[in-house]
Amino acid sequence: MSDLSFTFQLTHTDGGARRGVMTTPHGTVATPAFMPVGTQGAVKGASHRDLESIGAEILLSNTYHLYLRPGDDLIARRGGLHSFIGWNKPILTDSGGYQVFSLAERRKITEDGARFQSHLDGSSHLLTPEKAADIQAQLGSDIAMVLDECLAHPATLETATASTSRTARWAERARARMLQLRESPVDGVIVTNKGQAQFGIVQGGIFPALREQSAHDTVGIGFEGYAIGGLSVGEPIDVMYETVAHTTPLLPADQPRYLMGTGTPEDLVEAVARGIDLFDCVLPTRNARNGQLFTSEGRLNIKNVRYAEDEGPVDPSCQCYTCRTHSRAYLRHLFAVNEINAATLNTLHNLSFYLDTLSRIRDAIAFGRFESFRLAFHQRLSRQSGGSEPPE
Amino acid sequence: MSDLSFTFQLTHTDGGARRGVMTTPHGTVATPAFMPVGTQGAVKGASHRDLESIGAEILLSNTYHLYLRPGDDLIARRGGLHSFIGWNKPILTDSGGYQVFSLAERRKITEDGARFQSHLDGSSHLLTPEKAADIQAQLGSDIAMVLDECLAHPATLETATASTSRTARWAERARARMLQLRESPVDGVIVTNKGQAQFGIVQGGIFPALREQSAHDTVGIGFEGYAIGGLSVGEPIDVMYETVAHTTPLLPADQPRYLMGTGTPEDLVEAVARGIDLFDCVLPTRNARNGQLFTSEGRLNIKNVRYAEDEGPVDPSCQCYTCRTHSRAYLRHLFAVNEINAATLNTLHNLSFYLDTLSRIRDAIAFGRFESFRLAFHQRLSRQSGGSEPPE
Repeated sequence: MSDLSFTFQLTHTDGGARRGVMTTPHGTVATPAFMPVGTQGAVKGASHRDLESIGAEILLSNTYHLYLRPGDDLIARRGGLHSFIGWNKPILTDSGGYQVFSLAERRKITEDGARFQSHLDGSSHLLTPEKAADIQAQLGSDIAMVLDECLAHPATLETATASTSRTARWAERARARMLQLRESPVDGVIVTNKGQAQFGIVQGGIFPALREQSAHDTVGIGFEGYAIGGLSVGEPIDVMYETVAHTTPLLPADQPRYLMGTGTPEDLVEAVARGIDLFDCVLPTRNARNGQLFTSEGRLNIKNVRYAEDEGPVDPSCQCYTCRTHSRAYLRHLFAVNEINAATLNTLHNLSFYLDTLSRIRDAIAFGRFESFRLAFHQRLSRQSGGSEPPE
Repeated sequence: MSDLSFTFQLTHTDGGARRGVMTTPHGTVATPAFMPVGTQGAVKGASHRDLESIGAEILLSNTYHLYLRPGDDLIARRGGLHSFIGWNKPILTDSGGYQVFSLAERRKITEDGARFQSHLDGSSHLLTPEKAADIQAQLGSDIAMVLDECLAHPATLETATASTSRTARWAERARARMLQLRESPVDGVIVTNKGQAQFGIVQGGIFPALREQSAHDTVGIGFEGYAIGGLSVGEPIDVMYETVAHTTPLLPADQPRYLMGTGTPEDLVEAVARGIDLFDCVLPTRNARNGQLFTSEGRLNIKNVRYAEDEGPVDPSCQCYTCRTHSRAYLRHLFAVNEINAATLNTLHNLSFYLDTLSRIRDAIAFGRFESFRLAFHQRLSRQSGGSEPPE
């Protein structure tokens, strides 16, 4: 593992909240961090320089999509994902499992892995723990995720138990493959980032005992970091918070903890309070394209006619290019007439709001005032809930 | 006219080519200049800061579209188009005539003006020379265009003659209205840019005698600048070049000359050689969204499978962000998977190529080597025509 240049250094703790620095082969990431989602090697509606200008330090990209198009072989021949997409900062890739599981009728799970039909052309593919590791080795992300079984909510204890132990067996196979890839060449696999780290994933649905078992098994295998998967899938929000709170103490304090696929700005604050270091979510980008903007005083729907002549910025507290340059009235016009720039300007704002929230969280932790930040953050949002725009 | 701050200063001539500086209430424009088209108050796929970063000094916006959505009244209440869209550099607006004429069955021309049905909701509207001036006064562009009749190609001499004299009568009415708007308040019209200039438009189809008559009439009325309209509408390219060459000597040498709606990079070079100072065209932006990229060696279609693993930039001679950051392979991938960023990155490149071409034209004129620039420009393009990609 002499090539492995992945490290994690905790620099501050404040209650359950942690501030740290994650070092990867493509640079450092201040944590807690939010990873904008660049599904197909691009964050929809934001250029790399836009992302850098608002402080993005790490992107997430989706193995399933890149595997199908343009293909991990092509990307490996082009030197890996960083080189292919022209982004020289850290990248985390998921395993592809989440997308495969969402194919419903078009996939079949066995002990070996997940057989699925491409959503593009119906072609048949087999994703195993080893294959997911191989694809990500070819992509050369800085952090690879193990293939896990994504349990639907609700699930019976029986289903959840079987699924969680399969995830553990898959994690062992994924780790074995990763160690093999690090040791010596594997036929047909071009390892494009010799310093790639691998994170395990704790599953177990909403069952505390299963989460405990899964954490125990996953930590026992040993990874460079740990994710909590299977949340934000429809369970009540307090159950999600409780599950996070129950799980993080079971993970090594000196390694990064990643809450997958979450969430709203409120969720981020609450998960940080429970010891989470890394986040990804499509909410800021997807909602931006649908005209829903996040602000320090709540969400606003830019389509609303009430903004037609509103000269104010989306969020008076925001320093992003969109807020510095454009009024709500203009952004509403762009959305109403279906301009591309509605998507790009809204995306820039929403991502900026997310990244700025994380930046303020890190500052608060460093100064030992995370609890007062958290309180003020929620109070400001709840004032808006009493306002004139109905929640969505 | 004490508020009128529009001036034009020729600084160099080189054969028929001219270099100058146009001064407007919102700043100066080095000519010859290309105006990116921001139809609805936004250049599709390019933010204002993107445009400024590649040297755009003036935008064109479309009166027809803004009149319908969000409406010139709303824009006037918001202080005019510059304020509404957050662009503080010069803006030229067209009269709306071109869009109305393109409505075909949904418009009817009388001496009074053009009655049309909105392409959005079928509502009925009357666009007169006065109304076109009023709308643009409310928009507050730096340069307003008179309402002209856009003659279809081909047209008989009889049709062209009648149309050209109607355009002259409309020009008189448009100028009278403009002078009235400058003198004293007009009911229901908020003049948001007291320094707005007005350009006349020379029509006459492809008939030299009609172009002469139209130039004579239009110059006789007296405007701050002159456009050549009714070209790039399907006539052979050499006829377009001849018509431009025939018309420009009939226009005042000390005022700007604007060739409307043209064209390819080659057209720009050839029109500059014939004395044109201003251009607008949707080609660079529209083609970008369709995957066609302009380069110093010709056009390339990024969809082509030949670029799937091409690590080179779109144009090795180009210094734009897209070319500095991304390979043809990545841009092809983005286009193939239908990412928004394909449109934005391609648009940035194409506009950059257009603006850079104009910049090199201006340099060549200043150094008295426009003819050698022109020759080299065409030679480089024609080499590509012998290449392996078929012309489109």
